[in-house]
Amino acid sequence: MATTTLSEQLRVLDGPVDLTSYDSRATPGFAGSKKDQPDAMAALAAVLADRQERLYAAGAAGVGDRRVLLVLQGMDTSGKGGTIRHAAGMLDPQGVQVTSFKAPTPEELEHDFLWRVERALPSPGRIAIFDRSHYEDVLIGRVRALADPAEIERRYDAITAFEKGLVDDGCVVVKCFLHITPDDQLERLRARLDDPTKHWKYHPADVDERMLWPRYREAYEVALERCSTSYAPWFVVPSGRKWYRNWAVAQLLAEHLGALDLEWPTADFDVEAERERLDATATVGTQAGIGTRSTAPTA
Amino acid sequence: MATTTLSEQLRVLDGPVDLTSYDSRATPGFAGSKKDQPDAMAALAAVLADRQERLYAAGAAGVGDRRVLLVLQGMDTSGKGGTIRHAAGMLDPQGVQVTSFKAPTPEELEHDFLWRVERALPSPGRIAIFDRSHYEDVLIGRVRALADPAEIERRYDAITAFEKGLVDDGCVVVKCFLHITPDDQLERLRARLDDPTKHWKYHPADVDERMLWPRYREAYEVALERCSTSYAPWFVVPSGRKWYRNWAVAQLLAEHLGALDLEWPTADFDVEAERERLDATATVGTQAGIGTRSTAPTA
Repeated sequence: MATTTLSEQLRVLDGPVDLTSYDSRATPGFAGSKKDQPDAMAALAAVLADRQERLYAAGAAGVGDRRVLLVLQGMDTSGKGGTIRHAAGMLDPQGVQVTSFKAPTPEELEHDFLWRVERALPSPGRIAIFDRSHYEDVLIGRVRALADPAEIERRYDAITAFEKGLVDDGCVVVKCFLHITPDDQLERLRARLDDPTKHWKYHPADVDERMLWPRYREAYEVALERCSTSYAPWFVVPSGRKWYRNWAVAQLLAEHLGALDLEWPTADFDVEAERERLDATATVGTQAGIGTRSTAPTA
Repeated sequence: MATTTLSEQLRVLDGPVDLTSYDSRATPGFAGSKKDQPDAMAALAAVLADRQERLYAAGAAGVGDRRVLLVLQGMDTSGKGGTIRHAAGMLDPQGVQVTSFKAPTPEELEHDFLWRVERALPSPGRIAIFDRSHYEDVLIGRVRALADPAEIERRYDAITAFEKGLVDDGCVVVKCFLHITPDDQLERLRARLDDPTKHWKYHPADVDERMLWPRYREAYEVALERCSTSYAPWFVVPSGRKWYRNWAVAQLLAEHLGALDLEWPTADFDVEAERERLDATATVGTQAGIGTRSTAPTA
């Protein structure tokens, strides 16, 4: 078993990023093939359950400020939704909040581009998942020229400063770019057209965006280069194979949660005294006559 | 196989409710015993996945206004959290939002008791889960006399009117009372004290509330009687056995989603024309030179 973590294997290195050099169907870090994935996911589920509960417990007990933000970005059909269903779906929904960022509303447009993102951040103990994110403002924002070049330029630094603040504030930021090729996308869009139960997922505008693939690729490369930092690196997740993508994002989450090395909160009460108090209530609610409907409301 | 649904078996009937007459360890509607539960859950997971996706698809396609609200109420340790983890955890988190209602904040107290609940309602296609709810305002509100008796009295009718509005608005309301006995609770609170990894779930105030068990039972009985309606019935879920409770709530959800009988949204575009448009983009992004870093930003 290699001692290298998946985080180390997938993180974007310093220097120019050339997405055409990434194999979307690679399976780095996974020992085995597709048939081994269900067992790997079951094992991960147990690990995630333990680590997420420790995080949640710390939040509930008011111990520390740790929280997690999982950012999912990728071209249409790269599988942001499927990743949420299969990877985030392994988590306890009590501690998870999913936010999908669509085209900004008029109200959102009245504010800085980070405003709507700040409102969706996790509180201590929680895991927030962003289906698209503030990165759209340097992706479609750049490709479609939704802001002038100086503003787009400003945003890269604004994003890294924002993420630095998050990390300083106890938030672990896990940014996953779900990497597919134009051929992967072609196959998946065709599959949607071929299956009437998938038509609702297809939008003619997807083809318009697809025609801008080279510009999106460039916009992603710039974003990955400029906003992959030591405190909040980007991970390029090969997403041509869905089973690998789901495992990889779950594994990245598990590694980041594990790195927090959280202890269970200790009791802030006297355990023995509480045992005695509890014992004294052993027969409560079982006595006849108390609290039956003849009792008047307390007030 | 009985043709009776679990919804029919667990719903509160008209007339006085006597919670002491309910067996918390009963397993109505479940064919088999604990060892059969994992298979039953796996089967339910597939059913839920299909039905939730149809709901989500309808919401995404803007077809109809169907949505679901699952309300979980019960005494401490009845397992609201465990039910969310195990039953709601079977759902796709993209379409789920969990809200835990704690003691009202000062801002919430400035508004009518339904204000904070309205802000947490599901939008079309979504499933909202309430961990506690507006019912607290006639439960702890009544037991602890947090409002005067006339206001408590007003709230029962306000709740049924509110829920009627929700149902008229396309929202399916599934209200589950997780029923345990004082003995069940005693055993679970003791288990929390015995396990240091569970200490964070224990609060000395739990014992104070426990001492008021008879009054809580009465408050629940009144709420179940007055607010179980034809359009939004209450279900009493025996919760002395956790495995049954998890299955029962998932089954109730599945039955209610199934009753919506949702079709997949039909394409609002010309499928054949889209196939041709897509085919025309077969080589996009693979041509050399386009969109490489030498290309200036679009703007």
